[in-house]
Amino acid sequence: MNETLAQLHARKSVRAYLDKPIAPEEKRAILEAACAAPTAGNQQLYTILDITDQAVKATLADTCDHQPFIAQAPMVLIFCADCQKWYDAYQAGGCQPRAPGPGDLLLAFSDANIAAQNAVTAAWSLGIGSCYIGDILERCETHRALLSLPEYVVPAALVVFGYPTDQQKIREKPRRRAMEHIVHENTYRRMDGAELEAMLADHAGQRSYTDWLQAFCQRKYNSDFSREMSRSAAEYLKQFLPGPGA
Amino acid sequence: MNETLAQLHARKSVRAYLDKPIAPEEKRAILEAACAAPTAGNQQLYTILDITDQAVKATLADTCDHQPFIAQAPMVLIFCADCQKWYDAYQAGGCQPRAPGPGDLLLAFSDANIAAQNAVTAAWSLGIGSCYIGDILERCETHRALLSLPEYVVPAALVVFGYPTDQQKIREKPRRRAMEHIVHENTYRRMDGAELEAMLADHAGQRSYTDWLQAFCQRKYNSDFSREMSRSAAEYLKQFLPGPGA
Repeated sequence: MNETLAQLHARKSVRAYLDKPIAPEEKRAILEAACAAPTAGNQQLYTILDITDQAVKATLADTCDHQPFIAQAPMVLIFCADCQKWYDAYQAGGCQPRAPGPGDLLLAFSDANIAAQNAVTAAWSLGIGSCYIGDILERCETHRALLSLPEYVVPAALVVFGYPTDQQKIREKPRRRAMEHIVHENTYRRMDGAELEAMLADHAGQRSYTDWLQAFCQRKYNSDFSREMSRSAAEYLKQFLPGPGA
Repeated sequence: MNETLAQLHARKSVRAYLDKPIAPEEKRAILEAACAAPTAGNQQLYTILDITDQAVKATLADTCDHQPFIAQAPMVLIFCADCQKWYDAYQAGGCQPRAPGPGDLLLAFSDANIAAQNAVTAAWSLGIGSCYIGDILERCETHRALLSLPEYVVPAALVVFGYPTDQQKIREKPRRRAMEHIVHENTYRRMDGAELEAMLADHAGQRSYTDWLQAFCQRKYNSDFSREMSRSAAEYLKQFLPGPGA
């Protein structure tokens, strides 16, 4: 296995950090790797917010489902799907651009996450850990105001970075599911209950599969934060969907 | 610059391939690197379709905005945002899951693209080029039928892989925009016409900025394929949005 493959395999989420800043040249290397990522038509349909204000980090730690380690991370980046800047450029340049639609948003959402993952990989190669915080999709109104997001900009990925503590270094990376369930040949193969249980049973540990699954469903999927994520996402999407009169 | 950073910088899209298959162990290494990627709550909210049927590749080459090189790629993967499998598992396991919402879709869309980018990075480390095809978001009805996608599965990224031809190896990687326009501090800074022109002027080459911008807007943004992408994305989204009676 080459060095890059080994790093992709070893990389795991890091949620506790040494009290050690990330040097400007390392931050720059991480941001440059993000910007070197593949991007649709070389358009870089994202804007990266570099959150340096401790008060903003503290707010995010609260608004993103109360995760204090966000405030303790020495580097906090928000990768925004940006359908605003090209639209503004077209308007300023005398084009007649159509309004951004849901296809534009999803394409920009991809661009933003692809860039984020390059940042994560680059950081790991420098000994710097990271963690994605999906909760940035929640609290649309609060985050729009906090980050001054215009109508065609959506936060696609919040990633926090820092040097791992010793405890984080030795923590085992959670196992992934067996490949046969994740990779399907040619067409999507809808899995039945038995295959789904075979795929997920490993998650349950010492508990019965059904007990674990029902608790997981309550804690993760039927949870308040998860419902809030869909409410908030629908608010962001409204800007991109044709209105009733369209 | 370490080896991983150098590879992230060097990687560029490859659209012409040697007539050389990708060995099973290399394909496996690429898929395993994809599955090692960060994923929300270790849920792997994606399914990867490995398109081995030449007839399906040929159809995709046509339906994805007529790009014949898709059919010539020795490996074609579709990373689907999958909100179906957990929903099915919850139902089979006697939970009362809510219907998947737009937050679930966007989270799964992120997961799928993060995994895709690990595949791209892994492939490059093995000397294998790749290209994202955003057009997989178009033609919802056709692609649903072709790939047997159930209602809560959306194709998030089509990536084609192959060994680069000599011509592709020497092709210059397109330059990215200056970092100052892409990275904003703390809040989103909406750029005015002058800054947008400064950011994009490099794209124009020998033409005037306005000529280039207006042509680009017509060719890329106001184009039929781009409008189709938003129509199709809206169709996919319908399943995830509360109906008028909800």
